[in-house]
Formats: sequence, C-alpha cells, structure tokens
Amino acid sequence: MLFGKPRQRPEKDSGLLYTPATMTHFIERLNASVRRTGTAALVGLDPRFDQLPQNVIAAAKQRATSERTIQATAFEEFCCRIIDVVAPLVPAVKPQAAFFEELGPDGCVALANVMRHARRAGLIVICDAKRGDIGSTAEAYARGYLAGADPNAAAWAADALTVNPYLGRDTLEPFVKVAAERGAGLYVLVRTSNPGAGTLQDRVTDGTPVYRHVARIVEELSLATLCKSGVAGDDFGCVGAVVGATYPQELAELREVMPHVPLLVPGYGAQGGSAADVLAAFRPDGLGGLINSSRAINFAHTREPYRSQFGPDRWEDAVAAATRDMIAELHL
Amino acid sequence: MLFGKPRQRPEKDSGLLYTPATMTHFIERLNASVRRTGTAALVGLDPRFDQLPQNVIAAAKQRATSERTIQATAFEEFCCRIIDVVAPLVPAVKPQAAFFEELGPDGCVALANVMRHARRAGLIVICDAKRGDIGSTAEAYARGYLAGADPNAAAWAADALTVNPYLGRDTLEPFVKVAAERGAGLYVLVRTSNPGAGTLQDRVTDGTPVYRHVARIVEELSLATLCKSGVAGDDFGCVGAVVGATYPQELAELREVMPHVPLLVPGYGAQGGSAADVLAAFRPDGLGGLINSSRAINFAHTREPYRSQFGPDRWEDAVAAATRDMIAELHL
Repeated sequence: MLFGKPRQRPEKDSGLLYTPATMTHFIERLNASVRRTGTAALVGLDPRFDQLPQNVIAAAKQRATSERTIQATAFEEFCCRIIDVVAPLVPAVKPQAAFFEELGPDGCVALANVMRHARRAGLIVICDAKRGDIGSTAEAYARGYLAGADPNAAAWAADALTVNPYLGRDTLEPFVKVAAERGAGLYVLVRTSNPGAGTLQDRVTDGTPVYRHVARIVEELSLATLCKSGVAGDDFGCVGAVVGATYPQELAELREVMPHVPLLVPGYGAQGGSAADVLAAFRPDGLGGLINSSRAINFAHTREPYRSQFGPDRWEDAVAAATRDMIAELHL
Repeated sequence: MLFGKPRQRPEKDSGLLYTPATMTHFIERLNASVRRTGTAALVGLDPRFDQLPQNVIAAAKQRATSERTIQATAFEEFCCRIIDVVAPLVPAVKPQAAFFEELGPDGCVALANVMRHARRAGLIVICDAKRGDIGSTAEAYARGYLAGADPNAAAWAADALTVNPYLGRDTLEPFVKVAAERGAGLYVLVRTSNPGAGTLQDRVTDGTPVYRHVARIVEELSLATLCKSGVAGDDFGCVGAVVGATYPQELAELREVMPHVPLLVPGYGAQGGSAADVLAAFRPDGLGGLINSSRAINFAHTREPYRSQFGPDRWEDAVAAATRDMIAELHL
C-alpha cells in the first residue's frame, strides 16, 4: 500500500468472503462467488484522472509530488475504495491495465496493489490487459499474470486475464497450459463491442465470420479444461470469451456454439447495451456470464440520479447505489 | 538506474550518436539511424533468466534480495550492457515487454530504465508489447508508450510500439493519432512468424487472406501520415507492419502492397529465416525494413562459434561478434 492511513472498510459480509484456496479450478471459484453474491455483475476499474472525485485527488496531492505519482496514488486509492464498496455485492472486478500502464512503473505498482487488495477482499480479479504473443513470450505473460488459486503464484495476482487471438491458436495454448495448472482463467477476445469491431471479426471465410472461427477454437480449448468439481452448473472450462453486448443476436448465437465457455460481456451501460440485451449470455441454468460495467459505476457521482442524491463527497455511496441498481436491472 | 557503479561504456561513435530532437517524424529519425549505421539490423532484447551469463546473475544477487528483484536487476544490467555494445553498430533495439512484466512492478521499473538507457545511447527503441484496445483505452496505451521525438513525453520512452489489429481499424486510430502528434511509430501485426499464424491470418475472405486486408488498412494509415522531411527515401508513414521472415513469398507480396509502410521482420536467425529470405522486406532503394534477431544475439555466448571463442565471461564480446556477423550476412 502506498498509504499510511487505513481505509474505512465495509463490514464483512455474513456469507463467504474469502474464496477458499482449496478451490483449484477457476470456474469453481468464479461460480462460488456468483452464488454467494447472487449476481453476475462485474465491476470494471477504469480510473480516469479527470473524472476522479476531488477528495481523492486532494489526498493524493498530499502524499505524492510528481504528476505521475499523484495520479498513480489517486488511482490506487480510488480503485481500492471502490473494491471496499463492491466486495460484498458482486463476484468480480476487472481492472483495466491501460490506465495504470499509462503512468509507467508507478502505475504498475498501483495496479499490482489494486489487484492484491481485491483478492484480499474475496473478489475474483480479471485483469483486462488483452495480451497476446508467440511461444515462450506468451508463456511469460501467462506466468506473470495468471496467479489463479494462489494469489502469490504470480507477480500480478489475477484470477484471469483477457487475451487476443490474432496471432493464432498455438499462441493461446501457453496461456491455457498455465491457466489450467494454476486454477486461473482466460477470456479470449471473440467479438468486441466497438463500432469498428467488424473490420476483421465479421469477415466471412468458409461460410462463417472470423469471430465464429475463434469461438469454435475457444469452445475446444474450454472443453479440454472442464471443471470437475461435481457441483451442478460448474461444467465450464477455464477458457472464456469476450463478447460485446452491442450485438444481442450474436451473443445468443455465441452462447449456443460455446456451451462450455464462460462469457465476459462488456458494453453494458455506458456503451449502450441493456439488461434485456445481455440475458442471452447466460445458459438456461443462469450461469456462464459476467456482465461488465465500468464508467457508469466508477463515476456514478458525476451523473444523475446519483449526482444530485449524493454529491461529490459521497461518491462511494454513489458507487454502491449504482452497483445495486445494476444488480437489480440484471434481475429484471 | 538500480546500480551504483557505472557500466563501462563503448567509445562514442565518431558519427551522429544522439538523434536530433528536431527530427519530428518517426521515419526521419529511423532512417537517419539506418544511414548512420549502414544496416537494417534490429537487436531484440529478450532477457531469459536461465540463459543469463553467470557474472550478471552473481552481480544481481549482491544487489537484490527477493527472487523477482534479483531477476529484474539482472535483466536491467544485461540489457543495458547489450545496448552499450550494439549502440554504435545498429539503428534500433526492440525490448520484449513480456519478460519484464512477468516480474511484476520490479520488472516494469527495469523495462523503463532499459528503454531510457537505449534512448540515451542514440538508439531507436521499439517496445514490443503488442497492445490493442478500444477507444480511450487504446489512447491510454498510446499516450503511455509513444514518447516519440521527446523521450520525456511518455512514461515509457519508446519511439515505436507493436500493436494488434484484431479489435478493428477504429482501435488503431487512437494509436495513429498519438504517434503522428509525437513523432512516434507503430508496427501493426500483419503476418506473424509462428507455426499457427495462419489460424486467422490466412483465412480467405472476399478472395484475399485476412492478413492482406490488414495490410491494406496499414498502407492507408501510413499514407495519411507520410514523412515530409524532403530527404530521398523518407516517403514512409509512421504506421509500420510486422511481417514474419518465415514466409518469404508473402514478405515480397506485402512489400509490394504496402510501399509506404516500414516493415519489422522477426523470425531471422533463431526462428529460421535466412538473409536471402528477408531481402524482400526492402524497397529498391534499400530502405523500409528492419530485420530483428533477439536470442541469437542476446545469448550468443551459449552457442558456437562464439561459446568457444569467448567463453561465458566475455559474453559482451560474443554479442558484438554475433551482431557484426548478422550485419555482414544482411549485406550479402
């Protein structure tokens, strides 16, 4: 921790707060967290300095001096306080590596601290870094990020990592090997939620769009790493897929062709996807999807109705209210 | 610097050692470095702990304590000493981010120091991090890595960054915008050199493989960012392409369809590409290609003829000899 003063912590949830280390498959731990919280809401951690609450910025300026260390200090404080608010409410968080890396090594220290803080709070941590490389280089990324069941097994304490498939199936395999060994997970980019996603992903080849070919590979890899917990509904592998919420029909198709693949669905909230749009991510048993919202929760204090209700100083209450509202929407 | 004792530095090249900051387009600085050294050889920096020279490991153990800080200290020392050896010989180096990131924040500090050391030595620095994300997230990566003409403009002092195109053309644009503003460069993955590269890249769509569609986009982006230095041969844009040397016929085709795109060619040496294979990367004027070798140079002391000639203690002489041999091979 960069900070001397301990943060105010929420009361411990009466249920299971720390995921037992004896759960050695990613899906076992993920599903236990989903069952504990009763929701598939995933809170993204996307700190943006120009939208941070003034009290976080002011505190950081008292602790750090250079522009980058002030920002890194503020990012860590902001994200750790969000974690404290959402840990009893949701199963998982997804820190976005880019915003931390922009600040250089200081930002990397903050990211590592944020990830460890989330693990200690009992959350599943999905590091959104979209890595990808070949052979032993891919394995270096995998070993570095995929801590899996033991938060100390890697330098970055992630339960799961987002990865990019463009370099080919053989470049996913080192990630899958390390993930399977360590009880970690992967989320392969299949169909992203940006306007230009179709440039490559929608190109039709052998009668099928490229993203469907990727989906087939991901299902194969996940089938080879199935969870054997014996708990009903845990029959997923550790290789997931990122599928945007902006294309509900595609989401339904992809759920069908990847029955053993956990999905991570971005694009909810700020990017335009609705609760009805994301229903298709779930299997009939209600499992298999995580629905991400980042900005709409992180910066709830900047938008109505939360802005009027809480004001800038009570931004954590705004985060809690926005998270509860999202959870309620997903249950509609 | 993590180290108290200054390293032995090579004599300054009698020519231009520091690239003038007045050169504000990436290509102007890259081509000036190629002309100064008379070669297109690019030295990759891929530190792997189990192959480091014993004297580097022993020194690191005296300066650091934990396993990760020892490795990070050794990686920084090893790469900085390679930089000192190759700075008078080659135009550019390419640190591989994965090996540093595997060590967590300590590795990130080492990577930042290695990149700054290379800039101070007058080398063009291509950070091989294969980043890619959407919208403002892509811009955060771009702002963080693309220092361009001014090494202090970003937290990581890269002249150029490798990027992944799977998320679509709109996700490349934030990188191009920042690169153009800062005089930095990009190398977009077009055709990689791994055995499974074809999984997606070779899929035929609209009569053309996916990698050729990516190549067309890269040529368009580079045409929009042409260097206007007025120097003959500088008519490239700042958006380059990564094209593996393991498919020489494809390399020739891609050179032809991307006449304004600087190419980065991996796969030379350890990955099997020969000097004849990579000739196709260059335009008739001899410009437009950088040929990368990493392991074969970094760990020259572990293979013949250098192992017998220099032994482990003279590993820097092995690096120099292997670099000179590569340069000579490329001139055949």
